[in-house]
Formats: sequence, C-alpha cells, structure tokens
Amino acid sequence: MDKKIIGIDLGGTTAKFAILTPDGEIQQKWSIDTNILDDGKHIIPEIIESINHRLNLYGMKAEDFIGIGMGTPGTVDSEAGTVIGAYNLNWRELQFVKKMIEEGTGIKFAIDNDANVAALGERWKGAGENDPDVVFITLGTGVGGGIVADGHLLHGVTGAAGEVGHITIDPNGFECTCGKRGCLETVSSATGVVRVARHLAEEYAGDSRLKAMLDNGEEVTSKDVFELAEADDPFGLMVVDRVCLYLGLACGNLGNTLNPSSIVIGGGVSAAGEFLRSRVEKYFKEFTFPQVRESTKIKLAELGNEAGVIGAASLALKYAE
Amino acid sequence: MDKKIIGIDLGGTTAKFAILTPDGEIQQKWSIDTNILDDGKHIIPEIIESINHRLNLYGMKAEDFIGIGMGTPGTVDSEAGTVIGAYNLNWRELQFVKKMIEEGTGIKFAIDNDANVAALGERWKGAGENDPDVVFITLGTGVGGGIVADGHLLHGVTGAAGEVGHITIDPNGFECTCGKRGCLETVSSATGVVRVARHLAEEYAGDSRLKAMLDNGEEVTSKDVFELAEADDPFGLMVVDRVCLYLGLACGNLGNTLNPSSIVIGGGVSAAGEFLRSRVEKYFKEFTFPQVRESTKIKLAELGNEAGVIGAASLALKYAE
Repeated sequence: MDKKIIGIDLGGTTAKFAILTPDGEIQQKWSIDTNILDDGKHIIPEIIESINHRLNLYGMKAEDFIGIGMGTPGTVDSEAGTVIGAYNLNWRELQFVKKMIEEGTGIKFAIDNDANVAALGERWKGAGENDPDVVFITLGTGVGGGIVADGHLLHGVTGAAGEVGHITIDPNGFECTCGKRGCLETVSSATGVVRVARHLAEEYAGDSRLKAMLDNGEEVTSKDVFELAEADDPFGLMVVDRVCLYLGLACGNLGNTLNPSSIVIGGGVSAAGEFLRSRVEKYFKEFTFPQVRESTKIKLAELGNEAGVIGAASLALKYAE
Repeated sequence: MDKKIIGIDLGGTTAKFAILTPDGEIQQKWSIDTNILDDGKHIIPEIIESINHRLNLYGMKAEDFIGIGMGTPGTVDSEAGTVIGAYNLNWRELQFVKKMIEEGTGIKFAIDNDANVAALGERWKGAGENDPDVVFITLGTGVGGGIVADGHLLHGVTGAAGEVGHITIDPNGFECTCGKRGCLETVSSATGVVRVARHLAEEYAGDSRLKAMLDNGEEVTSKDVFELAEADDPFGLMVVDRVCLYLGLACGNLGNTLNPSSIVIGGGVSAAGEFLRSRVEKYFKEFTFPQVRESTKIKLAELGNEAGVIGAASLALKYAE
C-alpha cells in the first residue's frame, strides 16, 4: 500500500481532517468541534485523540503515513512548529503544536497559517493547476492570501508575506484595524463591501432597493449587495464596480510585481462568481502592463472549503522528497 | 588554486567583465566597448575573444572556472540562454548567447536580465546582506527591479516578475510608454522626477529657483531637482516630497506583499542618498502594516556599477552546487 498523508484545517469552530494519497486525492474526511475552553489547551490533545481513533478504525499505523500537515489561524513559526496569537482559538501563549502532535501520533508534522495553506491547496489541486507561480486571495470576514513563487510558498522575513489584505489601494481611504488607511481589506472583505455601499450611498440620489435598505437602517450583507447588483439594481452595480476597481488595482500590482500564471480569488465574497471575476479582470487589465496583462489570469477558487485540508496535506509532502 | 567565476555586465555602450572568487571577491576587472553595428552581431564574438585573450594573459584555462554569468538588456529566456528585443544592442532577432559563449570559451554559461542581475549582486554582496528575501529597485532612465524571495530570483510565468517600474501608484496618473497610466516609472525615473516638477509647477506660486528655471525653459534634470531641494528650495522640497510619496507607496505595497528583510534602492536617481532614503522611508512606514513596518528596511544600494558583474557571477554559481 502506498503511504498516505493527513491534512488538518484548524478553525475557530471545527477542525477538518482528511486522509489523502500523495497525489492529493481525498480518501477519507471527518471533522470535530474545536474546544476553545481553558485557553484552548484541549485543542491539540483532541486532535491527537481523533487521529489515533481514526487510524485504529481504518486499521492503519503511523508507518503508513508520510506525514501530517496543518493550517491554523495565528502567527506560525513553521520551522519551530509553534503558534501564537490565534485569538479565535484562545491561543494567546506560545503553543508547541509540532512537538505535541509528533509525540502523540508518531507521525512527522508540518504547519503553516491558514491563508498560506489554502493558497497551497488551490495551487496544487485547484485553479492554480500546480503552476510554480500562483497568488491566492481570500475575501471573507477579513482579506488574506498566500503567494507561491518559483514553486515556493513565500513567508518573508517575519512571516507576513502574502498579507494582501493590507495592500494600500487608496492612501486616503478608510481606516483599517491594522492602524493604517486604505487597506484592500477595508473595501473588499464582507464588511468592507457594505462599508463601500454605505459610503457611496451618501452621494447616490437615484432609485435603488439597496440604497433604500441602507437608508431604512435594514441589515445589509455583502451577499445582498451582490444579489441586488446581479438583479440590475443601479446602485448595487455602482458599489460592485467600485469594489472590483479596488480588487483590480491590487491584483494588477500583484501581477506587475510577481507575474504569476494566475491570481486565484476565493473566500465567501467570491461566491458572487463570474459576476465578480469578470469585473475584477476588467480593471486588472487596465492596471497591468502588456506582458502581464497577456500572461497572468484572474481565476475563481475551485476547491471551496477543501482547500485547507488539501493544502495542509501538501505541507507534509516535503518529508517524502 | 580554487576555481573562479566570470561576471559580465553587458550594456549599450560597454561590456564590463570581472573575475571573482566563489565568495564574490573581485580579483580582476576590465571592459570593452559594445559594438552594436550590423544588428549587434559582433557583440558576442568580441566578448568571447576578450575572455579568451584575458585568460591567456593570466595563464588561466577553461577548467579553472566554475562558470560565466551575464546580465543583459532585453527579454531573456534564462533556461534556453537566449535574448531577444534588446534594442540598445540592436538585437531585434533571437540571439543564442549561451550556445555561442559555451562553444567559444569551453566554460558553462548562465544569463538573466540586467535588473535581475543587479538585484542578485546587491542581495549577495551589497545592502541585501545575503538575506533570502530582498527587493531591489533601480531608479535610472527607466525604473526596473528584481525580487529575491525565499532565496530564489523570481521570474514569473513570462519573466516579467520584478518589473516594479510598472506598479500603478495613481490610477489617474501620467501616461506611461507601456500604454497604461500612473506607473511608478512615470514619476520616479530621472525624467519622471522632472515630469512631476513640471506638473506641480503649474500650481506653485511661491519664490523658487527651480520654479524659475522651469518657467524660463531652462534644461532641468532630476539631479537639479534634488540639489535645489537639498539647498532648501521650497518648490524643490515639494517635488522631492511627492516623488518620495509615490516611491513610499510602491515600496509599502512591495513590503505588504513580500515582507522582505530589505528593499534596496539603486540607480542614478538614488545618488541623492540619505536625503531620498529617509523621505521614502517616512512614507513607507505610513503605507505598511505594523509587522512589515517593523521588519522590512528601506536601504540604499552599496555596490554602484559593480552590482552587475557581481550579480552576474552569482548566476554561474549554480553550476558549483
């Protein structure tokens, strides 16, 4: 039997697990609730217990595995295998994740942050087509990303490489939680889209269901904005156009800097699909020079929430090299 | 005797040569004029002749060398060892540089474009301190650059990675020769600095020697702009501040994206030294989020015009691995 790999996508509410073949096919999947009580000290023991339980169930042993890979929130030291500052896990103190999991399972372990791991997943088995140069942007509650360049996941000097949510798209733009102004996240996260709508609504005078909802104080989500725009609400179209201009500017400069084969857009906001992608692409072409315009593609993510376990598994493959 | 390496920096007027030790110390230097007549067909034969002549002079043989590396203008296919579209060399057609030089000298050969090679040089022996993550920006007639990330020189899918001169710093900015608007090159190359001065002069009404020179139709260079600003010309200071804002925005987003240990600024415009660097750094800090602001440094290039031969030599080192 060929050896397998285990991918883990650790989040604030669930931890997803998968057993995969070395070429990235998922053979088994399961998940457990993330127990964040007591400063999150139960999380790793329960992950170990769940892995050992499953291996027992499937009649598998530690020797049957190349390794385990995991994506996690927080600041990761992938060399040391530690995590700190993952607030949705209650991990304020340094967590020795690699040491605990290797001792608890007898299987080699690798770890990186969740946005990087999703980038690896989309690059390997999704829209990135396993090309050596792929940028991944995830538009969710926040905006994150990961960069694979010349076949390597980039970390930079302190692990902040790929933090595309803090690209400045407007020096005079909205204040960001990071302390500076005009970050991509302030205008293209789920809350950012609604922020752009509220801002533009102040000056919009035409007839619009979206404008009326905002003026009436109704709760408006980014999904509402995109759905109304797709239904030809004129103000909704204006908001989506502005959001896509900002995304196109950021993607354009990622293209001008890195010339990847593709920039892959994922996360909840990307559920708007081709309606979003085509508009981002229009501005991307406006903000790139010819060689990049013709060679770097704007794509939608393809793996959905399996990107995490697949990318995590790919981390473990380095032990097979 | 330890084996040596040869670095060549090919330009439109001269080709610079150096013989270096494997740790990057220059032992011999010379140069020849670049003969661009007859579609540049004499360039490579004259380079071969010059190398063979020098090796003979020093009593050295092909076996004494690890390899030859070269930086060149134009579009380079570093795998194939070919160059096309180097207009200042009159190379309009595909040039089989690697094949010719390897056959003519009996020494292995590697090639990349001149901005990438200068980046490798500054990273290896200059301001980059041989760190794995270094971005190099050269401010000259044009604005170019090179990116070393996770220890690898980035090329992207078609070799356009590192073309930082075409980062869009203002969607409504000046038209660029590349066809789009607001490129960094339009406001921070030698001509770009003067363009910014002419543009701002239209609205500046105060007393200023620089403003008077522009209004009188005198020839003004970027060197004039920086020298007058350093002598406290109020309009000169305004122009330099604006140029540094644009550079700080571009460097900020390179930092937010790649988190290199340093962004190194070189080229003719960088002769303004600390006067330029400190102002770029001020805006860089404004446009970066805290983790990058604290870890990515803005530095001046240190190697001057030796960056090319040193970086070119480092290309050849891969044959020693």
